[in-house]
Amino acid sequence: VVRLIVTVTPNPALDVTYRVAALVPGTVHRVAGVVVRAGGKGVNVARVLHQLGENCAVLGLGGGHGGARVTEELRAGGIEVELVDTFSEVRRTLVVHGTDGVTTSLWEPGPAPADPGQAGEALTGAVRNRLPSASVVTVSGSLPAGVDADLPARIAATCLDAGVPVVLDLDGDPLRVAAESGGAVLMPNSDELEALTGERPVTPADAAALARELVRPGLPGRRPAAAVVATLGADGLVAVSPAGAVHARVARHVDGNATGAGDAACAAVARCIGAAGAVTSVRLHELAARAAAVSAASVVRPVAGEIDLSAYRRYLPHILVEDL
Amino acid sequence: VVRLIVTVTPNPALDVTYRVAALVPGTVHRVAGVVVRAGGKGVNVARVLHQLGENCAVLGLGGGHGGARVTEELRAGGIEVELVDTFSEVRRTLVVHGTDGVTTSLWEPGPAPADPGQAGEALTGAVRNRLPSASVVTVSGSLPAGVDADLPARIAATCLDAGVPVVLDLDGDPLRVAAESGGAVLMPNSDELEALTGERPVTPADAAALARELVRPGLPGRRPAAAVVATLGADGLVAVSPAGAVHARVARHVDGNATGAGDAACAAVARCIGAAGAVTSVRLHELAARAAAVSAASVVRPVAGEIDLSAYRRYLPHILVEDL
Repeated sequence: VVRLIVTVTPNPALDVTYRVAALVPGTVHRVAGVVVRAGGKGVNVARVLHQLGENCAVLGLGGGHGGARVTEELRAGGIEVELVDTFSEVRRTLVVHGTDGVTTSLWEPGPAPADPGQAGEALTGAVRNRLPSASVVTVSGSLPAGVDADLPARIAATCLDAGVPVVLDLDGDPLRVAAESGGAVLMPNSDELEALTGERPVTPADAAALARELVRPGLPGRRPAAAVVATLGADGLVAVSPAGAVHARVARHVDGNATGAGDAACAAVARCIGAAGAVTSVRLHELAARAAAVSAASVVRPVAGEIDLSAYRRYLPHILVEDL
Repeated sequence: VVRLIVTVTPNPALDVTYRVAALVPGTVHRVAGVVVRAGGKGVNVARVLHQLGENCAVLGLGGGHGGARVTEELRAGGIEVELVDTFSEVRRTLVVHGTDGVTTSLWEPGPAPADPGQAGEALTGAVRNRLPSASVVTVSGSLPAGVDADLPARIAATCLDAGVPVVLDLDGDPLRVAAESGGAVLMPNSDELEALTGERPVTPADAAALARELVRPGLPGRRPAAAVVATLGADGLVAVSPAGAVHARVARHVDGNATGAGDAACAAVARCIGAAGAVTSVRLHELAARAAAVSAASVVRPVAGEIDLSAYRRYLPHILVEDL
């Protein structure tokens, strides 16, 4: 059986980009260019995995004409998709690029599911059905309005019970609840790590120290995480598990579009874990190096969910990895 | 057989409204409220006719998930729809309302049909198929990119050949070409009347004088229009045919949203002509009074394509109509 990487996107989107001369409030603009693209963090993770040659399936909540459009676009790109029919529409994220260099964003809130509890159950069930053929599962991004914050933790528990490793890229309450449930690989950025631990990491060593607390067994009221991969922007990332802690970064600064760098790192982490078969079998140096290289290779591409494959191959031998 | 009013919208839209605190270029906005509504001038004409109790059918070009959404929404509202599958998507018009009172608009250009000539033929054919049951046909609004400017004139000629009267609410080249073809009722506003005649109407009497030229027989290279109803904003409107010329306005100024007032007037004009059976059978006073009252009753409603029916009944006896 061919193993799949399953990426879960509870709140997918249509990412819309408008090009205008300059956005001037109070006036009428003729939009020069419109691009509409399936989006949401888990969708971006799947796109990167697909570019890296992995079989993957996008699972999520969907519905309406926007949900159908997301499904069609991903399928046309060769990515398997299963969206649970939940919403009247999927949300849109609008980015208005002025040729004057000013970028303005408008995020739609997205509709609430008619029955949020039932929607969460249905998505958990869809993930459960995929577990026999899944090597690893990722859950990324926000939740729709009205959906309980413990949905990602419940999906993770379902996977872990079946022996399938889970990578979580979350923030806010869903991250907090999932961290307390334990067992998964957490991928916080600096802000999320601070929100989770109450301390702000200034250096990579700080981040590793905070991450070590999250993987340490025996804390009251909290099961340890399997591992923590904390993304630190230009400082690269730290990967921490009970086996050790490493810091990885590209040798020199990469200019570009950092949106989606975290999703690219998540794809690389899931890929390493899927290939190893278990988090405990992963070589931490390799995981960190690949995640840093894939992340940097996404920054040089103008849109989230894409990497420059030749840049990835160029960066990979030159990632600086050190034990912490 | 029940006669229908057929409203043709060559370039329908989804009208999207966002509510934000204040639009600030260069920042990220969480949109507080999103409303999506089927739009385009001919769609608005049909909505007003439907409110007035008329059977009508919306014909137009469409396609994609947006086209399906337009169709579903109008059908759910009890309006018959037939969109020719032409585009990958229908255009969106985005209006961003700030609670600071500033309104900003972004009009998508809309996709060009893959084969604009074929799309025009297909729409003309769809209109032709409806003519046996049509009392009157309206054609409103812009054309999609790549579609020849003579499409409304060709649709009008098809209707007139079958003895069905036509009302045209156009601008730019499509209006110019249709005016030269003659035979239809034209509904220009002041700007469009100026673009058509080369002279700017300052008073209603000016507008009537210009309109008289358009209905006068015997001009070289131009067939006369059947009638002209020129909408003049706060000055009301003038209706001119070979039978005479009248000016109609509400007794006092109506505050509100003027978007869609022209579409409401178009609906009223089509309704009078449909009821009379022919433009020459219409009583010009009644047509002008009803169009002015429906138009004013749309201004008091916040969105285009709606009228306040009780305001309409209240205004109608108090419309000031005078011969010019």
